[in-house]
Parts: sequence; structure tokens; C-alpha cells
Amino acid sequence: MATEATNGAGETNGAAAEKTVTFTSLKPQLFVESSKASDAVAFYKAAFGAEEVNRISHPKRKADQELPLLLSAEIKLGSSSILISDLSDDSTALVKTVGTGLVFCLETEDIEAAIDKAVKAGAVAEGEITEGEGACCGGRVGMVKDPYGIVWLICTPAKKCANVDA
Amino acid sequence: MATEATNGAGETNGAAAEKTVTFTSLKPQLFVESSKASDAVAFYKAAFGAEEVNRISHPKRKADQELPLLLSAEIKLGSSSILISDLSDDSTALVKTVGTGLVFCLETEDIEAAIDKAVKAGAVAEGEITEGEGACCGGRVGMVKDPYGIVWLICTPAKKCANVDA
Repeated sequence: MATEATNGAGETNGAAAEKTVTFTSLKPQLFVESSKASDAVAFYKAAFGAEEVNRISHPKRKADQELPLLLSAEIKLGSSSILISDLSDDSTALVKTVGTGLVFCLETEDIEAAIDKAVKAGAVAEGEITEGEGACCGGRVGMVKDPYGIVWLICTPAKKCANVDA
Repeated sequence: MATEATNGAGETNGAAAEKTVTFTSLKPQLFVESSKASDAVAFYKAAFGAEEVNRISHPKRKADQELPLLLSAEIKLGSSSILISDLSDDSTALVKTVGTGLVFCLETEDIEAAIDKAVKAGAVAEGEITEGEGACCGGRVGMVKDPYGIVWLICTPAKKCANVDA
């Protein structure tokens, strides 16, 4: 598996038909045991002076359940952002192949093209593109695993679903 | 272990004597099996259109050994940077507690104060502060593991050792 193209091929001489994929942001996303995400945010504030810039509760857990799950909180450390999320049933499926719960979330308008390109380069697509709660901020999300064991979530840009909690 | 302060304590009412710690950057750093780091950089270029912005060879491996190890290559994806490094004997020791080889590198001028603050918040210091080859770009580096299993390298800012390969 994944033996296709890690030799740098296809970078400058790719087919003319290949789509350009633009990523609007890259954010590491940490999934923690439900419902420790709030504690984790507090810890990163205390330990590293992180600043919380966004917090989105799980839309399905607001009214009828005791434990409101944190879909994602965004914290800033310097000029970088990290997303912290409670593991839900959906996200557990999404990240069950990941040892530490640490993945990368790449935001783009064209999830399909991004996944295609990554798979052509040697990544392995994991599962289908899903809508909703699994990751990032509740938009559409697909997943690839790279030859180095890292899982990449290819997600709808955050601005498109920033008011999922509204 | 690590049961101290994940409850958000000590954030606004900390002792007046506590030093302010400033981080100049946060970069995820991926350690891969030696010497696959170059392949990994090529893969991330092909898969995600990453741009290589810096490459530092291992200073000790230049003349007298067959396999030049990549101490770290910095790639840009959107506005974010990721460091890719070959595992060396030193870095294997540094990251042996990490499942995926993925850690965070936090750059600061005051490594000791940063580690102190993180440990007070509930992180666990791992090993001593070391000089050299283990991580980042060859400056001083310390390591803490947080209560969520993530390893943080607290490093000298990159600008201070950018010409280690010169």
C-alpha cells in the first residue's frame, strides 16, 4: 500500500488537467476523552498562556443530555491555532487509527480534489466524506492517512460553519 | 502524577512573582524513521502542495557518514509551518514516549520559565534540557508531556540557530 509516488514525481510535470487545491488553513486538532476537552483548554491556558478564540458545543448535546460535548474549541498559541475536541461516537470512528488523538485539520473549499491529489501522492483515503459532527467545526470532512502514520482531516473552511452553535 | 492543576486554577490569581513566558512560534514537528525525512518532504509537497522553506542537515553527518540525516526541514502549508526530522539517536530518546512521532515545538527565549510554568499547571518534565541535535534546529531544548499524552518540545527560537548548517 501507499507505494505510489513518494519520490517527488508529478510535481512539476503533472497532467494539465490536475486541479489546483488551495488550503485556507492548517490546524492541529487534538481529540481527548469525552468530556475532558474543557479541562484541556484550561490546562493549555495555564501551562502555555493559550488564548481561547472560539468554542463550539456539540449541537446534538445541548438540550437533552447531561454532558455537553465540546465539538471544538480553538486556542491560539502565538500565531498558531490548535483545535481541542471531545471524542464523540462519530469522531472516535474518525480517529480510531490515531495513537495520540492528534491529527491535522486542513481546510479547503474542494475536499474531493484535495483527497484525490493526496491519494495520488501516496496517501490512503479512510472512510467516506461525512457531514457533520465528526471533526473540525461541523462541516464536511474527509480523511486520509499518510505514509508516515499521520491522519489528515480535509475539512470545510471554518468560516462556513462558524455559527453552528448559534 | 499530573494531578495538580487541570481545573483551571492559578490562571488569574497566580503569584505575583510568576514570570511572563512568551512563545515566538508553535510548530508541529514530525519525526520519521531515519532517513525518510526527505521522502516525507517530497510527499507533502506532492500531496498537499507544501512549500519547503528551510532545510538543515545534521551537522555531524556531513562529511564522514553515508547517510546525511535531516535535522529538520520546515514546510509551509497555508500560513502554518511543520517541521520534518529524521529520527537520530538523540531524538529517538527525546520522542520515545510518543506514539506517532508527532510533537509540538514551542519556541521561546526562556526555556526554564516555560517548563516551570507548564509543570505547575500539571505537565510532567521529561529528561533534562539538552543542547544540540535532538530537536528543532539544534538549539537548546527541553520536553514536557501534558496530561493528554502530547509531548511539547520547548526550544530556542529558530532564528538563533538558523545557520547551523553553514
